Amino acid sequence: MKKSSTNSKKITRRDFLKKTAAYSVSAIAAASVLSPIKLKADDLAITNETEWGTKLGLPVDNNRYGIPSPYEHRNIRRTMDLLSSGDMYASVSMCPIHESEGIITPNGLFFCRDHGGTAIVDPNKYRLMIHGKMKKEIILTLDQLKRYPSETRTYFIECPANGSTGWRAPQLNNLQFMKGMVSCASWTGVMLKTILDDLGLDKDAVWMMAEGSDNAGNPRTIPTAKALDDAMLVWGQNGEALRPEQGYPVRLLVPGWEGNLNTKWLKRLEFSDKPWHSKEETSKYTMLQKDGRAIQYFWPNEVNSVITSPCPEKPWTDLKAGDLVEVEGLAWSGFGTIKHVDISLDGGDNWIEASFKGLVLPKAWTRFSYIMKWDGKPLMLSSRATDDSSNTQPTIDQETSAVGVESVYHRNAIVTWEVTSKGKVNNVHIRKHKA
Amino acid sequence: MKKSSTNSKKITRRDFLKKTAAYSVSAIAAASVLSPIKLKADDLAITNETEWGTKLGLPVDNNRYGIPSPYEHRNIRRTMDLLSSGDMYASVSMCPIHESEGIITPNGLFFCRDHGGTAIVDPNKYRLMIHGKMKKEIILTLDQLKRYPSETRTYFIECPANGSTGWRAPQLNNLQFMKGMVSCASWTGVMLKTILDDLGLDKDAVWMMAEGSDNAGNPRTIPTAKALDDAMLVWGQNGEALRPEQGYPVRLLVPGWEGNLNTKWLKRLEFSDKPWHSKEETSKYTMLQKDGRAIQYFWPNEVNSVITSPCPEKPWTDLKAGDLVEVEGLAWSGFGTIKHVDISLDGGDNWIEASFKGLVLPKAWTRFSYIMKWDGKPLMLSSRATDDSSNTQPTIDQETSAVGVESVYHRNAIVTWEVTSKGKVNNVHIRKHKA
Repeated sequence: MKKSSTNSKKITRRDFLKKTAAYSVSAIAAASVLSPIKLKADDLAITNETEWGTKLGLPVDNNRYGIPSPYEHRNIRRTMDLLSSGDMYASVSMCPIHESEGIITPNGLFFCRDHGGTAIVDPNKYRLMIHGKMKKEIILTLDQLKRYPSETRTYFIECPANGSTGWRAPQLNNLQFMKGMVSCASWTGVMLKTILDDLGLDKDAVWMMAEGSDNAGNPRTIPTAKALDDAMLVWGQNGEALRPEQGYPVRLLVPGWEGNLNTKWLKRLEFSDKPWHSKEETSKYTMLQKDGRAIQYFWPNEVNSVITSPCPEKPWTDLKAGDLVEVEGLAWSGFGTIKHVDISLDGGDNWIEASFKGLVLPKAWTRFSYIMKWDGKPLMLSSRATDDSSNTQPTIDQETSAVGVESVYHRNAIVTWEVTSKGKVNNVHIRKHKA
Repeated sequence: MKKSSTNSKKITRRDFLKKTAAYSVSAIAAASVLSPIKLKADDLAITNETEWGTKLGLPVDNNRYGIPSPYEHRNIRRTMDLLSSGDMYASVSMCPIHESEGIITPNGLFFCRDHGGTAIVDPNKYRLMIHGKMKKEIILTLDQLKRYPSETRTYFIECPANGSTGWRAPQLNNLQFMKGMVSCASWTGVMLKTILDDLGLDKDAVWMMAEGSDNAGNPRTIPTAKALDDAMLVWGQNGEALRPEQGYPVRLLVPGWEGNLNTKWLKRLEFSDKPWHSKEETSKYTMLQKDGRAIQYFWPNEVNSVITSPCPEKPWTDLKAGDLVEVEGLAWSGFGTIKHVDISLDGGDNWIEASFKGLVLPKAWTRFSYIMKWDGKPLMLSSRATDDSSNTQPTIDQETSAVGVESVYHRNAIVTWEVTSKGKVNNVHIRKHKA
């Protein structure tokens, strides 16, 4: 058994299994997860005539670029009408992560944050300038940029304000609104290092400024070391061109770092020996401290996780005591790869390690799973992720003591769902954990 | 250096590099892929006012389920008007694989083959029956099915007739129409074994029949051994619900095997001690032999590959002699994992191993890359994939001698593109390779 953190009692896996009647995946074979199992005679729906079983469907050329089933019309991005000023140009559209499957967000549901609306850029008129302290300055067309050798890598992008809504607005009994400013995709483009090595940076070009071609521009300062590490200029997302709201035709990708740094509709990269102190790195996109002072340059999104099933939108109201059920969720870290995720059923007194599902990739969503038999009693259900740099999510108390109560950015405290005996699920994120 | 097949001369990698002036990715840093490099003074487009740089974009709530940029309107599925009867209900819509990035096909572009049109199924009325030779027969609602523990896995689906258009209709100077009946996605659902272990199959239940709930039904016989190996019942595709044209709300997934076996809008799985000899496994979906007799039960899609850049839709007409260029393509095998892909520049006389790009997963698209300097002379450009079961793509001569010239299904011969000195790319698939 792996070590619990200092604020947890130590229990063995065997103890936990006894205590909670938890089941491994292999135990599923011996006990049904289904309740009730319907036998043939119970349900005539299988023999009923249906419209789709008796008539021709839609012609195959109906849908040259496909769209979801009309029955999935509720699985959409949602805007923060509740908290926002009503300005839909400098606003955010939240990803329905409670409906996510696997570790990829489809492009139609990837969260979106604009500062001046979604720019619709003509790719034929698009230009990218790379200039400043270097031997060779260039302006590239889109075709020229795409001539560089490409790579495809899976990374999350997260707004550093993700989670702040749950913290500041406890009435948000909803996962999508609380944690929906993160999504994950497979990005295709060129490693920025490939281009910069070709252009020959000056030795003192230690800062890079990225600016978009939209009306907001969103200038941000980034250390050149990050640009040369894993930054990319991407034109592809999940197998096709970037969507307009993700920066079509080209965005900067700064894996694991603040979403705002991943400049959309990228126009310009400038290199210098000094940082820029741009308008988006003053009171905004900085990390407020307990004493009211901000750290200006702190970029990575910290290790984070949330249980996506159950959640307020996906309750257990159809379950009955004794049913087997899969608890699922997502973890991610801007510092690297998720190492393990622990689950607590009692608000943080005891923790047990969850299993990973599918691929475990650096700076990408990592899906975890824990199969258990629910005894019908109330739970306080939490997840706590740890990355391979040994960062672990703090409790809310720990977070508050570090950054105070006013900071909007970089909140990654453990989220707790209350599960009632009727299977209703409530956000008690704001409530104090047991320590 | 890996072994060449018996029909190739043996050359060393060093020989090849000398001969073709091929470059590794790391050599890119020393030589530009760009032609021409524009300096700042050459291109005022970077300083021009643009509509998107001076006006607000679209509001973020414009697009609650996002769609591609209007400038990407040509990247769509296309129907085979050229070869089909004009019936758009029993027809196919081809994936634009020349525009693919990475190894995932976005849901809007995943190829589609219907036998009675695309069924629009009401998920609330959906039922799945599993019956026949087993201890416990069941009928499940969609919610009940989703209660099983889920997995997400990346697999291609390919129509076994993929490539037959290039073979039978050499006038198709087009990758999308020739090889567009294959796509790849991350699928979420339950392993069929999990359910069947729970229900308790009889010992002699060695055959499974899968039937759809649409008007065509598309009944197919599948060995129970495959169902217990890696088959899945899937409801999720690339992070969201299946699209209607992929079988919403539930399809059978039979990884690596004929697309037609991956029953959409799944209604029924029946188990028996005898196969069914259904209408879709007689003259159709069987493998014709040289002597005119067909093998009725042969299911896997064989090892295959194609170069996607360049291709007829993505020529080298903008390149000039001496330019570095990346040759890219996709490989896949229903028998397992791609082990290596070889590239020939001379129609099959000499072969050199390509690099893999990104993830290499079993029964999934695998992307390969080969960076070279083009000397502006004509090429005969081919790719040849080998899987981890030691299957290698045959030449067209080898394929013809094995299956004759009439078979529509299971064609996986090496594809050759002619690149002219002007950079135009032509399909010479039908032409005889050098042996």
